[in-house]
Amino acid sequence: MSAKSFFRRLLKEVVHPSEDLRVERQARKAIDLCRALLSEQGEFSGAALARDALAAYHELPESGISAFFDHLVHEFSPDTGEVVRAADAYRDNPSWDRLLALQRSAEPARQELFRRLNMAKDGTAALVALRRQVLRGLKTHPDWRAIDADLAHLFGSWFNRGFLRLERIDWNTSAIVLEKLITYEAVHQIQGWQDLRRRLEADRRCFAFFHPALPREPLIFIEVALTRGMSGAVQPLLEVAAPVAESGRADTAIFYSITNCQDGLRGISFGNLLIKQVVQELQAELPGIGRFATLSPLPGFRNWLDRATGQSGGLANAGATLEPLQRLQTPDWYRRPELAQQLEPVVLQLAAYYLLEVKTNNEPLDAVARFHLGNGARLERLNWLADVSEQGMRRSAGVMVNYEYHLADVEENHEAFAREQRVIASADVRRLARAARRLLPAGPEQPPRKEGRRKKRDAP
Amino acid sequence: MSAKSFFRRLLKEVVHPSEDLRVERQARKAIDLCRALLSEQGEFSGAALARDALAAYHELPESGISAFFDHLVHEFSPDTGEVVRAADAYRDNPSWDRLLALQRSAEPARQELFRRLNMAKDGTAALVALRRQVLRGLKTHPDWRAIDADLAHLFGSWFNRGFLRLERIDWNTSAIVLEKLITYEAVHQIQGWQDLRRRLEADRRCFAFFHPALPREPLIFIEVALTRGMSGAVQPLLEVAAPVAESGRADTAIFYSITNCQDGLRGISFGNLLIKQVVQELQAELPGIGRFATLSPLPGFRNWLDRATGQSGGLANAGATLEPLQRLQTPDWYRRPELAQQLEPVVLQLAAYYLLEVKTNNEPLDAVARFHLGNGARLERLNWLADVSEQGMRRSAGVMVNYEYHLADVEENHEAFAREQRVIASADVRRLARAARRLLPAGPEQPPRKEGRRKKRDAP
Amino acid sequence: MSAKSFFRRLLKEVVHPSEDLRVERQARKAIDLCRALLSEQGEFSGAALARDALAAYHELPESGISAFFDHLVHEFSPDTGEVVRAADAYRDNPSWDRLLALQRSAEPARQELFRRLNMAKDGTAALVALRRQVLRGLKTHPDWRAIDADLAHLFGSWFNRGFLRLERIDWNTSAIVLEKLITYEAVHQIQGWQDLRRRLEADRRCFAFFHPALPREPLIFIEVALTRGMSGAVQPLLEVAAPVAESGRADTAIFYSITNCQDGLRGISFGNLLIKQVVQELQAELPGIGRFATLSPLPGFRNWLDRATGQSGGLANAGATLEPLQRLQTPDWYRRPELAQQLEPVVLQLAAYYLLEVKTNNEPLDAVARFHLGNGARLERLNWLADVSEQGMRRSAGVMVNYEYHLADVEENHEAFAREQRVIASADVRRLARAARRLLPAGPEQPPRKEGRRKKRDAP
Amino acid sequence: MSAKSFFRRLLKEVVHPSEDLRVERQARKAIDLCRALLSEQGEFSGAALARDALAAYHELPESGISAFFDHLVHEFSPDTGEVVRAADAYRDNPSWDRLLALQRSAEPARQELFRRLNMAKDGTAALVALRRQVLRGLKTHPDWRAIDADLAHLFGSWFNRGFLRLERIDWNTSAIVLEKLITYEAVHQIQGWQDLRRRLEADRRCFAFFHPALPREPLIFIEVALTRGMSGAVQPLLEVAAPVAESGRADTAIFYSITNCQDGLRGISFGNLLIKQVVQELQAELPGIGRFATLSPLPGFRNWLDRATGQSGGLANAGATLEPLQRLQTPDWYRRPELAQQLEPVVLQLAAYYLLEVKTNNEPLDAVARFHLGNGARLERLNWLADVSEQGMRRSAGVMVNYEYHLADVEENHEAFAREQRVIASADVRRLARAARRLLPAGPEQPPRKEGRRKKRDAP
Repeated sequence: MSAKSFFRRLLKEVVHPSEDLRVERQARKAIDLCRALLSEQGEFSGAALARDALAAYHELPESGISAFFDHLVHEFSPDTGEVVRAADAYRDNPSWDRLLALQRSAEPARQELFRRLNMAKDGTAALVALRRQVLRGLKTHPDWRAIDADLAHLFGSWFNRGFLRLERIDWNTSAIVLEKLITYEAVHQIQGWQDLRRRLEADRRCFAFFHPALPREPLIFIEVALTRGMSGAVQPLLEVAAPVAESGRADTAIFYSITNCQDGLRGISFGNLLIKQVVQELQAELPGIGRFATLSPLPGFRNWLDRATGQSGGLANAGATLEPLQRLQTPDWYRRPELAQQLEPVVLQLAAYYLLEVKTNNEPLDAVARFHLGNGARLERLNWLADVSEQGMRRSAGVMVNYEYHLADVEENHEAFAREQRVIASADVRRLARAARRLLPAGPEQPPRKEGRRKKRDAP
Repeated sequence: MSAKSFFRRLLKEVVHPSEDLRVERQARKAIDLCRALLSEQGEFSGAALARDALAAYHELPESGISAFFDHLVHEFSPDTGEVVRAADAYRDNPSWDRLLALQRSAEPARQELFRRLNMAKDGTAALVALRRQVLRGLKTHPDWRAIDADLAHLFGSWFNRGFLRLERIDWNTSAIVLEKLITYEAVHQIQGWQDLRRRLEADRRCFAFFHPALPREPLIFIEVALTRGMSGAVQPLLEVAAPVAESGRADTAIFYSITNCQDGLRGISFGNLLIKQVVQELQAELPGIGRFATLSPLPGFRNWLDRATGQSGGLANAGATLEPLQRLQTPDWYRRPELAQQLEPVVLQLAAYYLLEVKTNNEPLDAVARFHLGNGARLERLNWLADVSEQGMRRSAGVMVNYEYHLADVEENHEAFAREQRVIASADVRRLARAARRLLPAGPEQPPRKEGRRKKRDAP
Repeated sequence: MSAKSFFRRLLKEVVHPSEDLRVERQARKAIDLCRALLSEQGEFSGAALARDALAAYHELPESGISAFFDHLVHEFSPDTGEVVRAADAYRDNPSWDRLLALQRSAEPARQELFRRLNMAKDGTAALVALRRQVLRGLKTHPDWRAIDADLAHLFGSWFNRGFLRLERIDWNTSAIVLEKLITYEAVHQIQGWQDLRRRLEADRRCFAFFHPALPREPLIFIEVALTRGMSGAVQPLLEVAAPVAESGRADTAIFYSITNCQDGLRGISFGNLLIKQVVQELQAELPGIGRFATLSPLPGFRNWLDRATGQSGGLANAGATLEPLQRLQTPDWYRRPELAQQLEPVVLQLAAYYLLEVKTNNEPLDAVARFHLGNGARLERLNWLADVSEQGMRRSAGVMVNYEYHLADVEENHEAFAREQRVIASADVRRLARAARRLLPAGPEQPPRKEGRRKKRDAP
Repeated sequence: MSAKSFFRRLLKEVVHPSEDLRVERQARKAIDLCRALLSEQGEFSGAALARDALAAYHELPESGISAFFDHLVHEFSPDTGEVVRAADAYRDNPSWDRLLALQRSAEPARQELFRRLNMAKDGTAALVALRRQVLRGLKTHPDWRAIDADLAHLFGSWFNRGFLRLERIDWNTSAIVLEKLITYEAVHQIQGWQDLRRRLEADRRCFAFFHPALPREPLIFIEVALTRGMSGAVQPLLEVAAPVAESGRADTAIFYSITNCQDGLRGISFGNLLIKQVVQELQAELPGIGRFATLSPLPGFRNWLDRATGQSGGLANAGATLEPLQRLQTPDWYRRPELAQQLEPVVLQLAAYYLLEVKTNNEPLDAVARFHLGNGARLERLNWLADVSEQGMRRSAGVMVNYEYHLADVEENHEAFAREQRVIASADVRRLARAARRLLPAGPEQPPRKEGRRKKRDAP
């Protein structure tokens, strides 16, 4: 299946033979070291060979990496004939030994290779980086998903939650870790060390998961503001010059940012666990805090809105009722009170509708909603002009959501969500969504699900 | 295949229904928690469920554990039909997706179960202990090897060398770890805290491997004496009252004991790596040390000797030449100089012969020899009356071996051993073995191998 | 003033000149290094000189140490003439500068010498050991108290409570520290590692103070048993084989041993602070514990009793009422129920009397009583046959006391004790003491105090 | 003696009675807590009282602090009468007891007060800050030097070198410490986190001393560049964008900045020790480094030059030879090659003369020269246009000095410097200084100093 890319490379080699040959020779050398590592010799002097193999890989130029990955796919995959033979033997007599033999023949040698590469100093970090590289090339090299699958399987085992350590991050943390927060933070960018410092003051908290093999690499981190009342706007929380409040007086913890740090660990989920452990930590440290909620964007809202309003049969037919939405095109409309006032009811209703009703594969279309609702949070409140940053306006029309985590309810909420696709939301939010439905013509998209939902929604 | 044990249990239940039913109900409860942990709900609230499942397992009586393991075998193994279907699909079209599907169908649900159980606090320790339990029952419950195979696979991944930490153990180490050394030490038993303390003085070293998930559980540890000259007897090294020498004056490091601590990690080998890392540590700390050697028993020697002398066609035919061996039966013969003197040449020659020539599956019959020679050590010297403890006499006839580790040579030695079954030994030891061959009649056992060996041995 | 010892040494030198001269030369060398350390050169290359000076001191034989101390007294004390001149100048004009000059002239050079010796590696430990040596010789060399006074002043400053760290000691603690507990424990000797281990189980606690310069040397430690009800006997608490109770079920913390570890820090008191900090630690960790009390000996009781009964005008005159006391001479009387029964009321009454009424310098004669009552504890209960160890019988006639620490009251109790010499005791204990007074003839010792006490006792 | 300030305050109180009375009452309250702390009660419940007293002090407004310090001077100083009596008693009979009594009477109660205040959490930090406050007010309140003397004495004891820890500072260090480096660095200001980070890269080193009671407060730190050859200009070392060199290739360590962090520890010198320990650390880590030198300013050079050239009889008389010096007034002269060229010989000669010949109290007038030469360094090289920063030009005319530390020689160099006021300098530097002397007319400046020197040198 990767024959095409293979020939392309061959072809290229014909055109620029010398340079390409050199690179291919380099890639071949790295592969040969991998082979040696997998041999009996690798068992014996693993760490040194692993180091050499990784060094050879790290020296490869871009095109060499590509060749290296192609080799990994073609030369370290199971042998089809062998797998078929093992499968036939198992079919004839489904004994334990034959099942084991089948398992072994079906497991790519790559998995053992990666396990052995891990013996090198900083091997784990190197493998996580290698997978990031694989993921980046996946679109143009679809057969690399063989490598991806092996690493994903391995990382799922290595980064087991039982091996993770929750650590509080504050101004006592080492600069090498703090600098990574600045680099990684994706939700509300950290504007240098002063900004970071404000986010680690007495009225803020920050926690991260670490793995023992990556002691200075946060896997995921969460930023929390300790407030009085449930924050409905993020800019005040990010204000570097804001006075520091006493943590003891807070009654609410607002999770205003959660960031996955390692692209190479994509698909291995830490967020759900992190939020719940942080809730427990905060409950123990600050008994005065009774409420735990996020302040989250609706990153797909504007996008959906634009598509929906442009679509025949969708909002486009709503006519006059949705006219105010055209004001969203006005630059800086949120600074003009009369525009903002006109937009508020329409946008909030549509946002509620978007979160509660617009689905993909039976789950909310909005990724953030999917994450928190899947974790058992409750969609508590929509906030108007809550994030007026460029990104906040462009993606969420300035709206933000409070998803509330009430530990006693999360399991039940989660069940409702997972089994019945039921979104747990406050009465206010549900009211907004109902109002939106009146705005909307019966489109082709909604009816079937709406039916299903209505029934379920009556249940509780 | 475990049908028999299953029916036996059924039968037993008929006899003592009430008690057995209670136990079965308990085992069932633990299994149900495992099922829940594997379900979507387990993904969500993993740690708590994992804790409950492990607690339920820990509360089981012996018979309940047996039932629990049987359930684990029967209910969490792959579905034969599904595997066969996936295999057929793959045979029809050996694509990546189908291979992945086949892999998935062939992987027992137990593996994922164990990965999730690991989320509980101290989950890793619990799983290691569970495997120990499985291994203990393997003889009477051969089908439990399904569980064993899954755990072995998992531990092979989790206890990757890249995750291990080498730590020096000394009198600053916590008592909880030191106590475990006392408990685990298998080669030369530690007689309480004073004995332990002597083994941690300035002229001794002790190192262990730890895994981050088992911070107070040594996986393997090694005890080293820093000496002048290569020690040829172990009792002086174990003498609690011996004066402490200056470590700076030592020229040799004697590895006199190496102990695997975790039965539950059987088959995951740490020893080879440990010895080599310790050699490097000692080279860095004490540049005056130029020689690294073990002082090891020949644990199977007496056993082999007894069998060989009792066997027709074996040593039994040797006649007069082996007559002195009968003195070995005399209690405390080693205290009687004249007996010891008579025995010395015969026993040492036979010991050399035993180490160099007596094989199983082309490898030395002696497990300790197999280990060190497989690690690339060189069989340097045999020592007479080197371990006169009860165990030393009973198993090794008081003989001990120095296997020398010369890091520059270990790889080559290992290759010779692994590929050509060639034992690297000093001229002295080889001479002893040759002398033994003259003692021995041409038995039915040796000739073929001897031929093969002789050629190879001439080579270098 | 030390002229005598000085001449004795001189004399000795006449007798065994050569050996003594050698030793004197050694002592002189150590002293010269001290001088150098005090010079401008010492300011410059302090650490190296300090190390050399301490090494020279450590090499001295017993007699050399004696000479060294004599030199320290005679050569590093203030110059009388200089002090007098500085004092005169100050009398003439009591200005700041002249006061400072007087202070400086009156401060022995020894203090600065000790401060500089501290620069050597492990200098603090060496100085603490040096003071222990000085204290041991104080009786025969009274002028060494000059050295003692300087070190006491210095240690008072260095071992300021603000620099101490409270650490919990448990089975995770390093063996090097645990071994010291075994060595130091003075109240209820620790019988090896098994005994120690029992004292560190889940129903026990142990805490110690450490100073950063002596990281592995406990300064003082306290042992605590977590119990239900207030323990009235120590042997059950010391029982190695006793089952371990759940700490969560305890309602009382019994401080059954407190040990000062460093003779060289005599006079610098840590105990009061330690007890109070431990009470706070335990309150935080185990909210179920509502009562904090010691289980303490009356180490001077039997001694006082013997003197008192032998003294004319004392108990000797009590006649028949005290007759049972003669049974105390019977070996193992406590094992004979009828004897024990007869003794109980008399001994308990006299013990109460001893604690409440028998004084030295207006404070309880009993050192342990002085300590706890001075800390603000309350004399709560006397316990019969509470310590039947050889030492317990010999010193305390088997009686033990519960001194109770109620943090809310300690300050007031302490004031009453310190200002009015009033012992805060329970009604029961006071009743016992009153009963004893009826036993006793009106001796010459008691009346005045009794008068005083009665008045005071009425006060609260 | 502080009567004046006392009356001034009194007077002020008359004018603005109410506010001043309030402040005075506050100061009085703080003083009363100090008194309580010194009383027997303070001995008992020290930590709590100490905390309260410090809290009361911290709440004082500026004027209250002033009043508080005045009280500290007047109420906690020794009683003149008592001191005189103790002195008289000692004169009569200079026994040990009386000396001790005199010492005690002459020691201000303040010292014990400070020792007790130290019991509060963070007490040491509070006392260091208090002394900084005292030092700042010393000019206007000369009698506060009584407080200063007590704290200096105490800190000299507490911050004994034996208690300090040398720590390497790098990008793993906690942000709270790194931020302090940015704040404290006085020699070459750190321009934010990027600048700091460059100073902690692989070709730089940074070390600091810490005291256990101030775990996150560097006392002093030193910045080192690892270079090839002895750097003669500081700007290249401070270049944030400079490529990072391999530390293994360096042959020279350049100490380009050393900063005392704690004003409150003025007079307690750490620098000499720090430099020598860092030399040892670097020798151990990087055996390739054979040369250790500073790159230091001459902070008093321009100042002296201006005075000298403006003074009749000084350089002013030098006439034509010194004419080029007028160019120093030209702004940015160093950017104009022809000016720089003209100035170079004259300025370098005068700089050498300034360092070698210009003295105050027999020591170099230049504080930095005094420090390094006093430490035993050798004045190795003068560097032209070595620091062209505004400060470098303004204070040192752009010149910088390499003082070289050769550990084997520092003691001898130090002796020469301390005893004979001899500056150890390279032949080149001495030649420059000689050349300068030819430039200079025999001025009226030198003779008197020379006179002075002779006298002083005779004195001791």
